Amino acid sequence: MKIDGKAFRTIWLKPADEKVIQIIDQRYLPHRFIIEDLQTVDEVATAIKDMHVRGAGLIGATAGFGIYLATLEAPGNISIDAFIAAAAEKLIATRPTAVNLAWAVNRQLNAIKNGNTIGEKINIALSIAKEIADEDADYCRRIGIHGLELIEAISEKKKGDTVNILTHCNAGWLAFVDYGSASSPIYAAHDKGIKVHVWVDETRPRNQGASLTAWEMGQHGVPHTIIADNTGGHLMQHGMVDMVIVGSDRTTYTGDVANKIGTYLKALAAYDNNVPFYAALPSSTIDWQIEDGLKEIIIEERNGDEVKYMEGLCDGGIKKVLLTPVNSKAANYAFDVTPARLVTGIITERGICEADKKSILNLFPEKK
Amino acid sequence: MKIDGKAFRTIWLKPADEKVIQIIDQRYLPHRFIIEDLQTVDEVATAIKDMHVRGAGLIGATAGFGIYLATLEAPGNISIDAFIAAAAEKLIATRPTAVNLAWAVNRQLNAIKNGNTIGEKINIALSIAKEIADEDADYCRRIGIHGLELIEAISEKKKGDTVNILTHCNAGWLAFVDYGSASSPIYAAHDKGIKVHVWVDETRPRNQGASLTAWEMGQHGVPHTIIADNTGGHLMQHGMVDMVIVGSDRTTYTGDVANKIGTYLKALAAYDNNVPFYAALPSSTIDWQIEDGLKEIIIEERNGDEVKYMEGLCDGGIKKVLLTPVNSKAANYAFDVTPARLVTGIITERGICEADKKSILNLFPEKK
Repeated sequence: MKIDGKAFRTIWLKPADEKVIQIIDQRYLPHRFIIEDLQTVDEVATAIKDMHVRGAGLIGATAGFGIYLATLEAPGNISIDAFIAAAAEKLIATRPTAVNLAWAVNRQLNAIKNGNTIGEKINIALSIAKEIADEDADYCRRIGIHGLELIEAISEKKKGDTVNILTHCNAGWLAFVDYGSASSPIYAAHDKGIKVHVWVDETRPRNQGASLTAWEMGQHGVPHTIIADNTGGHLMQHGMVDMVIVGSDRTTYTGDVANKIGTYLKALAAYDNNVPFYAALPSSTIDWQIEDGLKEIIIEERNGDEVKYMEGLCDGGIKKVLLTPVNSKAANYAFDVTPARLVTGIITERGICEADKKSILNLFPEKK
Repeated sequence: MKIDGKAFRTIWLKPADEKVIQIIDQRYLPHRFIIEDLQTVDEVATAIKDMHVRGAGLIGATAGFGIYLATLEAPGNISIDAFIAAAAEKLIATRPTAVNLAWAVNRQLNAIKNGNTIGEKINIALSIAKEIADEDADYCRRIGIHGLELIEAISEKKKGDTVNILTHCNAGWLAFVDYGSASSPIYAAHDKGIKVHVWVDETRPRNQGASLTAWEMGQHGVPHTIIADNTGGHLMQHGMVDMVIVGSDRTTYTGDVANKIGTYLKALAAYDNNVPFYAALPSSTIDWQIEDGLKEIIIEERNGDEVKYMEGLCDGGIKKVLLTPVNSKAANYAFDVTPARLVTGIITERGICEADKKSILNLFPEKK
C-alpha cells in the first residue's frame, strides 16, 4: 500500500545490503515514520516482543526473516543446527498467542534441513523468508477479492449508500506484509468506487486502531471515524454499522477466533443486533490442532503499565502520560476468544466459509 | 467518604461564607486534589458542562445549589422569577442525558414559588439545595445496605473467597454527594470485612474509572485492578467476575438503563456468561415518562477531541497527548442504553427489584 504516494511493504530486504532486514517501526506511528534496520536474531526477537512489528502475518514474516538472519549469524558447521534451533526457540517465545510465528519458524526449520552446507542453508532460508512474505501479501490480496463480494452485496442492498464497517485493532496492511486481512476487502471496495466508511475502534490499551488503522485508512483516502472501544454497541443498536470485519491472531479449525482483547464484546453486540460479524484471515492463522479456543488458547498477559500510561504527541515530541493513581494495579490481557457461534463467517484466501469445522475443512480439504 | 483520613462530601457550602459553594474539581483527579469555589449560576453551569463535577447524583445536587446561587444573584423583585427561570433553563441545558439535573432544578422551582419575597425565596432555595444533597447521600447509603446483601450471598457461596466485582465508569461517591451508587455496596461490604476485589474499567474516552473510581477505591483501601474497557468479556468468560454493578444516568420505569458508553457491552458479556448484572441508582434517576430507553433517551454527543487526545501526569504536570493522526475524525457518544432484558436487577434506596415495569412500580407504588 502507499505512504505519501510511494508503495511500501511492512518488511523488506535492505536494497543495498541483503544481510539486513528493514521494517517500519510501528511504535512511532502515526506521529513519525521510522524505518529500522534489523541485523541479528536478537534484534528481530526484540522487534517482535516489543512490538516494533505486530499483527499475525507480519510477525510470521518477520520471524521468517529472523531465521534467515540466524543462518547468517550461525558459527561453523558443527553447531549451526543447534544455533538455529536456539534462534527458533527464542523467536517462538516472543509472542505466545500468535500462531503464525511458530508456523513460519517451523516452515523455515523444515526447509533448512535440506541444506547440506551453511551456504545452502542460507540460500534456502532467504528464499523461504521471501516466499513467506510474498505468500502473505498474495493471500491478503485474495482475502480482499473475496471479502469485496460481501461489501458489494451490502452496497447494492443499500442502493449505493455508504457501507459502514466497524473494525477492531489493526488487521490492516501494517499487520501483514501488504493489503492486510480485515482491511483488504475495505481497500478493494474503496478502490472499486464503492462508498465505504470505517468505524475504527481505538483499541486500548495499545491504541492500534487509533494510531495504525486510522493512519492506514487516512493514507489510502478511506473515510473513517475513530471511536472509543466502548462505542460499537451503541452504534449497532442504532443501525449505524452494516458489518464488522476483524482480523485474528489464531483461529481454531472449529471457528473460534482469538483476536485483540475486546473483539468478543463487539461480536456479542453484532449478534444482538443482527449485524454480520466476519473474521478475515489467511489460513496460516488457522490452528488445526485446537478444538476449543476458549479453553485451549493461551492468552498473553502484558505489562499493566500499558494500561496505566499512554503515549502520544505533545509539544512536538512523543510523551508518556500517567492516567491512573500511581499505586493502583492494572491487568493487561492482550487477546480474547470469540466463540464460533458469534461469528457469521471467515474470509480466507480461498474464499468465505462459515465458522464451523465442516465449512472450514471443506475449504481446506487437505487438512481433513 | 475519606480522603487522607479526612471526611469529605463532593459538594458543600463554604464554611466561612454560605454564599459560596465548594466542590472537588474532579478534572484534576487522581493527580491533584483541588477544591473550587462557585459563586454564580454561570460558574455552576460551566462546572457541570465541563465536568468539574459529574455523575448523576452530584449533577443534581450541584444544580440544586446552582438555583440557590441564582436566587442570591437575582435582581430586584420584578424580574426575579424570569431570572431564576433563565438560570434553570441554562442549567438543564448543560447535560441533556442526566435526568437528575432537570429533577433537581424543577424541585427547586416548585419550592421557590412558595416564597413571597426575595429573602424567602433565598431561604427556601438554600434549604432545598441542602435537602437534595442530604437526601442524595442518604439514598446512596441505603443503596449500600441493600446491595450488601447480594455481595454477602456471593461471599457465602464462595465460602469467604474474594468476591470479584466489575464496575464501569465512576458511580462512586465522587458521582454523588457521598457513598456513591455502584460503589456503595462495595464500600459497605469492605467495611464489614467481606473480601472484595474490584475490576475497574478505565472507561474511555474520559477515563472516569482509571482516574476516579481507582482513586476512590485506593483512598478507601479497597483492593482493585484497572483494566482496559475491552477486558471485561474475557474475564467473565474465565469466571473471574462474580457480579457487575454499574450506576445509571437515566433508567426508564420499564428497566432500560442509560449509563456511560460501553455499559451495554458489559451487560451483553454478563448475560452471555451468567454473571449477575446490577444497576445501582437512587430513584431520582428513574424516568417515569419514558417506556423505551433505546428509542427515547437522547444520547449526548461530546467533542471528538476527547477521543483523540488524552490527559495525564507527565514530568510533574498535566499534559495532553494526541493519540491519533492529526486529520482523522473521531466520534464521541457519551452514553448507551442497556435494555432491561440484560439487567438482572436494580438496587435502589428502597431495595432491590427486577428490571421491569411491574417490579419497579411495586417498589415505588406512588408512581403507579
